[in-house]
Amino acid sequence: MENTQQPSGMPIHKYRPYHEQIRVDLPDRTWPNARIEKAPRWCAVDLRDGNQALIDPMSPERKRIMFELLVKMGYKEIEVGFPSASQTDFDFVRQLIDDGLIPDDVTIQVLTQSREHLIARTYEAIAGAKQAIVHLYNSTSILQRDVVFRTDKQGIIDIALEGARLCREFEKRLPETKVFYEYSPESYTGTELEFAVDVCNQVLEVLEPTPDRKVIINLPATVEMATPNVYADSIEWMSRHLAHRENVILSLHPHNDRGTAIAAAELGYMAGADRIEGCLFGNGERTGNVDIVALGINMLTQGIDPQIDFSDIDHVKRTAEYCNQLPVPERSPWAGDLVFTAFSGSHQDAIKKGFEAMEARAAAEGVSVDEIEWAVPYLPIDPKDLGRSYEAVIRVNSQSGKGGVAYLLKTDHALDLPRKLQIEFSGVVQAKTDADGGEVSSEQIWDIFTDEYLPARVDEDKWGRFELLATRTNSDMSGDVSLEVTLRDGEETVPATGHGNGPIAAFLSILHERGFEVSLYDYVEHTLSAGGDAQAAAYVELNVDGDRLWGVGIDGDISTASLKAIVSCVNRAIRTRERSGELASV
Amino acid sequence: MENTQQPSGMPIHKYRPYHEQIRVDLPDRTWPNARIEKAPRWCAVDLRDGNQALIDPMSPERKRIMFELLVKMGYKEIEVGFPSASQTDFDFVRQLIDDGLIPDDVTIQVLTQSREHLIARTYEAIAGAKQAIVHLYNSTSILQRDVVFRTDKQGIIDIALEGARLCREFEKRLPETKVFYEYSPESYTGTELEFAVDVCNQVLEVLEPTPDRKVIINLPATVEMATPNVYADSIEWMSRHLAHRENVILSLHPHNDRGTAIAAAELGYMAGADRIEGCLFGNGERTGNVDIVALGINMLTQGIDPQIDFSDIDHVKRTAEYCNQLPVPERSPWAGDLVFTAFSGSHQDAIKKGFEAMEARAAAEGVSVDEIEWAVPYLPIDPKDLGRSYEAVIRVNSQSGKGGVAYLLKTDHALDLPRKLQIEFSGVVQAKTDADGGEVSSEQIWDIFTDEYLPARVDEDKWGRFELLATRTNSDMSGDVSLEVTLRDGEETVPATGHGNGPIAAFLSILHERGFEVSLYDYVEHTLSAGGDAQAAAYVELNVDGDRLWGVGIDGDISTASLKAIVSCVNRAIRTRERSGELASV
Repeated sequence: MENTQQPSGMPIHKYRPYHEQIRVDLPDRTWPNARIEKAPRWCAVDLRDGNQALIDPMSPERKRIMFELLVKMGYKEIEVGFPSASQTDFDFVRQLIDDGLIPDDVTIQVLTQSREHLIARTYEAIAGAKQAIVHLYNSTSILQRDVVFRTDKQGIIDIALEGARLCREFEKRLPETKVFYEYSPESYTGTELEFAVDVCNQVLEVLEPTPDRKVIINLPATVEMATPNVYADSIEWMSRHLAHRENVILSLHPHNDRGTAIAAAELGYMAGADRIEGCLFGNGERTGNVDIVALGINMLTQGIDPQIDFSDIDHVKRTAEYCNQLPVPERSPWAGDLVFTAFSGSHQDAIKKGFEAMEARAAAEGVSVDEIEWAVPYLPIDPKDLGRSYEAVIRVNSQSGKGGVAYLLKTDHALDLPRKLQIEFSGVVQAKTDADGGEVSSEQIWDIFTDEYLPARVDEDKWGRFELLATRTNSDMSGDVSLEVTLRDGEETVPATGHGNGPIAAFLSILHERGFEVSLYDYVEHTLSAGGDAQAAAYVELNVDGDRLWGVGIDGDISTASLKAIVSCVNRAIRTRERSGELASV
Repeated sequence: MENTQQPSGMPIHKYRPYHEQIRVDLPDRTWPNARIEKAPRWCAVDLRDGNQALIDPMSPERKRIMFELLVKMGYKEIEVGFPSASQTDFDFVRQLIDDGLIPDDVTIQVLTQSREHLIARTYEAIAGAKQAIVHLYNSTSILQRDVVFRTDKQGIIDIALEGARLCREFEKRLPETKVFYEYSPESYTGTELEFAVDVCNQVLEVLEPTPDRKVIINLPATVEMATPNVYADSIEWMSRHLAHRENVILSLHPHNDRGTAIAAAELGYMAGADRIEGCLFGNGERTGNVDIVALGINMLTQGIDPQIDFSDIDHVKRTAEYCNQLPVPERSPWAGDLVFTAFSGSHQDAIKKGFEAMEARAAAEGVSVDEIEWAVPYLPIDPKDLGRSYEAVIRVNSQSGKGGVAYLLKTDHALDLPRKLQIEFSGVVQAKTDADGGEVSSEQIWDIFTDEYLPARVDEDKWGRFELLATRTNSDMSGDVSLEVTLRDGEETVPATGHGNGPIAAFLSILHERGFEVSLYDYVEHTLSAGGDAQAAAYVELNVDGDRLWGVGIDGDISTASLKAIVSCVNRAIRTRERSGELASV
């Protein structure tokens, strides 16, 4: 078997291997014999390193939601901003302190460069906090010394020491705040180890760590430049050479340029670190910070308490997606939409047998399955422990999440449901299938969907109070549209007219006249196929007399489709209230 | 600094640490001293392991596009399917062979379980190929032995040996095909090492490896169960204990459950493996197979030729997204939309200084910047080497990709452009800004957007031939809609009437009467905010007399917005043709 691979022509001459740039030499390393046996100190940096890498940085409201999520999950050290660099960050830190939003056992952390006016502003930001970590950094790498700071090693040390001394000065102005320190030689992975330890040790002399007031030395892989074992070697080397090691909290801050940040954090932790900084689902500059969700749940799978609550991973995911305005990828470890999905028939079969064997074992031992060891092929964790379920996508059943249902509607009917409607409809399917149990075919899902959202179809049984029989719109481009509709209301056929800036607004005014307070939250529409005479599907999310729910309309006419969607939604709202006994008075 | 973290209450009692399940003991490991110095043999399994994990498995057309991409990139061993398990896979393998689509230096690989009728069918599938790898597997883990196969170790060995013997029988029927073998003890990471090597060595006795006909022993992390150093230890142990080692090609197949598959592949390769199986961008079951794009480009950054062409990573990404119908995440290493984006001002500043320093150095040496060593802070690779550009998102300039432009339109104007329109508009922006150079503000982008797509606005200069002045639609729910419009055509005002199943179809018929052949590819519409009187934005992709392009319409009336989008698109098509000198004859 000859290897027929050929040179690629990629410009390899431009790149120098890491070991020719930075020497990491530790043949007597011990970390490969170590194992992770307890949770590290976590520091969540979503509100700083994560936030600064967002297309749309978080609004104050989103920041607060993220902070509350992190606190609720159990993170006790939270980097909340870079207050001297950003007014928004400054205001947010002040809000946390002034409004008393920081629990007593939580310590906020703020980042600052080693420059006097920035340090001064940082202490203004944290005044009044019970405790805070001031995180001082300056860049130390060969490359940044050369091209950014244009200074030598002593120049870099001077920057660091001047910053540390200023911090010690300013801390005296805040006698009521317990100030702790973190120092980062930024771009550590591009810094000679001997120089990195020299800077850190000189900074430690100024910061004077004690058992009661340890100092955090944070060693960031600002850019991930080598295989993760090299980072681990460097951490073990630093751990051996740092002064005051017993009063130093050695912290890791891996970025993910090479896709190995999780490994770097794990191996670096085995190499002697005490603490890990990262973001939920690996948000952060470029390829992201290390994913602290994956790190935590990896520990759980080894029977180690991560000291973080991941029991409702979907809530964590949705909140992070809301705050970051970036999706968590489908294959993100432990949390992506597809990670508990088995597509292959042989995997599904093995999983089924695994579940059966667990039930048999539990029955034999006279205990519940939740008390025995988890052992199901292809599922390294019980999805239930994360608030998820196992999903076999080919065969959708009452246990399937919105994923399978949405996929079938898309595959078989070209319907691309908005995410929130997927969630709503998934509840509808579960309510209908929990009763019967067993598998649900794509046809059954379609029947459930049409019965729920598209009942007002001619020549079929209809349960909806309203039905649209004819429409006529008039627009003279002045911004006002008049809409005439013929509406079935119960058994009656009634004409109605409304005005608005478009047919939706005009139709809402017609409904208003008929006694419904309806307002629009969201509207999306798409074609079901190419071609001018294609059908369109419209989705509307409405508030109908205080209830928030979705409606769907399908029609060749995009305008009619949207009006049908409103009818669908209003009919559903009426039925919901009728079922719950609050008969509509209209 | 007290650690205030608390127990989480997560059910750690259900999980047993890996080292209590599988003993991997190698204190004299040598791999941590090794470095990666050349490319492994690659095997791309996108068409098998990747494909089987897709929501919508690839159609024959998509399979062929994926195969051609992998060949073009330089992969020489390609697993093309599981032909005995799937008629689609069988037909695809036959098509590759019968249509002569496999280059002489490429070897296809097909997977089969170790069962007689499946093996027979596998050899039917590969008949006529010049060469092929038959990939035989059976599951060997403790858990699968217990709950799936309910047999002992000897039972598992018998399955493997019977399969290997059958393969040797069937190969005689294909004298014209050079058959090579790969054997996988599936769920290797859940298998005792002593047993795994025993099975492999017994299978090797049957397969009789020789220097000319080496046998691939593939050790899959079917489920990733431990830190990647443990996988590496196990690979070094296996490499020492495999019989016929000199005639064995030791192959890795890491999955990514813990998010450390890339590290596992790299450390396992350092531990003595020869070959790596994986998928582009880490597609595959659950969290995916190892990402062979990241692995290859990681090597490039160390000055090692990956023997794979990554020079147009966006093309590779778009093709993979088309075939898999799954997006490549924004932060996917080396390829995601955001990985060459610097959001932070200090990062942008350092990058700028890095570029300047490189230019100065190149000038001093009298060479081009492409000839000197790459050294720019925060950019571990020159994006240009992958066909990308560095993107500073806060300040959009002519170098910015569609990302920044699309983000600004979304942030500042609530417009959510379809991806293909983003690409089209990005070209428009670049064409307008290349001339001027320098940065482009959000206002300038909006001006360019409105001038290009929304010129037909009352009270402003308009360049478009057509403008919509009034509309009237009539629908009786019979499926036919009549549309009356008043249209400005050049300096004339003309009335027109058309019919169709909706206003779009009716308007296309009006354009047809005016001499334009227009058909619809895509249509998407959304509100710009909540509220019944909100504005809506409609996007249409049309074929106008053979040209494919987009139009945009904004209006309070969703129906009018879509007609405006058609007008926008037709006006653009006319202008394009006029500019290129082919004055429309209509």
